[in-house]
Amino acid sequence: MGASTAKPLSRQQQVRGFLHKNGLRAWIAWRPDELLMLSGYFPFWGASFLIYFADAEPLLFVPQIEPRDHIPDSLRVREYPWGDLKCSDPYSALVSAVADELSKKHLATELVGMNPGASRTSLPIQAAEQIPIPEDFAKHLSASTAKPDAQRQSAFADLCLRKTAEEIEAIRLANQVANVGLDAFFGNLNSGTSEAEIGAAVESAIYRQIGRDGIFHSRAWAMVQSGPNSANAGQFNRSTGRRLQDGDLVLIELATCVNGYWSDLTRTGAVGSPKAEVGEILSLAETAQQAAIDGVRAGVSAGYIDALARDKIATQGLSSFFPHHTGHHVGFRYHDPGFLIAPGVSAKLEPGMIITIEPGIYVPERGAGARIEDNLLVTETGCEVLSRMEASRHS
Amino acid sequence: MGASTAKPLSRQQQVRGFLHKNGLRAWIAWRPDELLMLSGYFPFWGASFLIYFADAEPLLFVPQIEPRDHIPDSLRVREYPWGDLKCSDPYSALVSAVADELSKKHLATELVGMNPGASRTSLPIQAAEQIPIPEDFAKHLSASTAKPDAQRQSAFADLCLRKTAEEIEAIRLANQVANVGLDAFFGNLNSGTSEAEIGAAVESAIYRQIGRDGIFHSRAWAMVQSGPNSANAGQFNRSTGRRLQDGDLVLIELATCVNGYWSDLTRTGAVGSPKAEVGEILSLAETAQQAAIDGVRAGVSAGYIDALARDKIATQGLSSFFPHHTGHHVGFRYHDPGFLIAPGVSAKLEPGMIITIEPGIYVPERGAGARIEDNLLVTETGCEVLSRMEASRHS
Repeated sequence: MGASTAKPLSRQQQVRGFLHKNGLRAWIAWRPDELLMLSGYFPFWGASFLIYFADAEPLLFVPQIEPRDHIPDSLRVREYPWGDLKCSDPYSALVSAVADELSKKHLATELVGMNPGASRTSLPIQAAEQIPIPEDFAKHLSASTAKPDAQRQSAFADLCLRKTAEEIEAIRLANQVANVGLDAFFGNLNSGTSEAEIGAAVESAIYRQIGRDGIFHSRAWAMVQSGPNSANAGQFNRSTGRRLQDGDLVLIELATCVNGYWSDLTRTGAVGSPKAEVGEILSLAETAQQAAIDGVRAGVSAGYIDALARDKIATQGLSSFFPHHTGHHVGFRYHDPGFLIAPGVSAKLEPGMIITIEPGIYVPERGAGARIEDNLLVTETGCEVLSRMEASRHS
Repeated sequence: MGASTAKPLSRQQQVRGFLHKNGLRAWIAWRPDELLMLSGYFPFWGASFLIYFADAEPLLFVPQIEPRDHIPDSLRVREYPWGDLKCSDPYSALVSAVADELSKKHLATELVGMNPGASRTSLPIQAAEQIPIPEDFAKHLSASTAKPDAQRQSAFADLCLRKTAEEIEAIRLANQVANVGLDAFFGNLNSGTSEAEIGAAVESAIYRQIGRDGIFHSRAWAMVQSGPNSANAGQFNRSTGRRLQDGDLVLIELATCVNGYWSDLTRTGAVGSPKAEVGEILSLAETAQQAAIDGVRAGVSAGYIDALARDKIATQGLSSFFPHHTGHHVGFRYHDPGFLIAPGVSAKLEPGMIITIEPGIYVPERGAGARIEDNLLVTETGCEVLSRMEASRHS
């Protein structure tokens, strides 16, 4: 971990380093999470395309109908036509414009990389329906770029792992907003309230933050499971019409997107006084999570952190009820790519990484499940829990 | 329109007719809107795969972690492994299982069709992040099926146009739920309230419907634009923190998904008493929309309906402020594929089609825009406005 004490690289240094190492002179990006990482711009329609040059400022192509007020001032912007009455084939105009730009820069297309995948993993602001990027368009553009190369694609994906200072602040804000939703969750844990009513209150509290303190986009997906439904939370998360009952555990899985940056949190609360065998599940999840958090610092392996949580659960003989990984990277997406915090993973934590820690225990025969999930910034000496407002921790 | 008086075809008759006409013995589907149309099943994770046979009952493959309680009883279900600690490559197991099934049925793979596109157009229940369907998986599966054929793909897409009686009821329910959200919209049109606060109230009202009257999933995207922001509503729809002022027009674009079926509505209201030049925009949008609705019946062309709305706007000299189509098909998605209700479109309306009618007028120099959008079921003699609870209309 010699590099861990060096000054962190800026986003531009990271991306240009990647291009240089891979013999590329430019990268074309259009997936919302890639645009966000490369330029800080979070697209509205999901039909914007960025050329990131190795030795010039990036150039962004946006459809005519894209709102402009949240495009960073530093980005050069070109418009391409869009609108069904005026333009029947916007993408052909775009493809020509991109080709022109590469040729103006004398860039042989085999020196330009692109993620050929047409399936995306972060939703743009207009999230109710994606603009389909036609298959033949993706083929057309990627045909004129460097051939896909698994190692290069993976190296590109890994660029998301080390967050910059600005990105950390943006993800911290997403966690602060998410906490407004968690307050609504704990404030609504009453017998007789439905899971869906609680989820609605949480999402509403988060949506209402738009317009405050530099927040132009704030949206959440809140999924609430109570009583026996909480025992399913290791398989799927969704809200039903079930009404809370005294003695229930209630679990919320909360995905929050603020200005494009994501927080991924889970809390488990109790209604009234659960039976001892139910309460034990919740306290064990808390203990396991804290054990893992206490071990997080630059230089330790992901597998080591996973074992800290998993061993605590094993001591109570409940290992088989913790079927999933302990954590993952987070920030540009609900789930960033990269190594998991899971058994046997030797990859090491580095300063600037942001990960979740989220052990869970789901016991159908006790009619209960619990998971606690926080988002942690890895530091030289420990970690900072971005998602707990009351206590930032530096060990 | 000779066929328009015949008894409508069932979904099975339509799909099997398509397979027969295209020389296919089966179709493999996985996009949420395709699964819904072919089987009435709305996936949770978006990683379920259906083989629809020309002469046998469909067979559905679901990941082990898929909830089962909303899979129609009539569907045969096979599970494939999923879960990162137990299974590192779920898709290879799935591909083998699908191949086995086709071979058991002695189905040469060139007799099996599939939509090769990996970009999807309706979100599954778990909507915060898509499970990426790996490119090479899509390639693998589609490589062993009939070669993509543009005409066949288009004929498959057209299967969504004529809704069955059951589908109409499901889309009617989505519109009824959407109206609960619209009540929240009109109930919150107060000076000083922010666009985001109104949007949050609308989405919350819709989410809370889960658990009522056969509703297992209910989610909305509500986008509110007020005053000068409403003049942007022909380009994009989003909520900001702007607070309503006396004299504003306020527009809501509302996408609602109930059990997988979609409603797409727009309303425009006023705060206090707008100036005459602003009020004129709203009343003209209402007049234009009603003119188009009054013309809807089986046998007329889409272009004819578009002109009914467009001509009303032209009489006031405001044509250039209505930049988009008058409508589109709706129900399996926020925007179903198929012909638009737009200038010059000769395709004819048929009974069982469900379309939107949504003329809009957006005038930046008056700081105002208005659009009214309803969802209409085309009938032999007119239409039924599914989205107006007070008055179903049969001409």
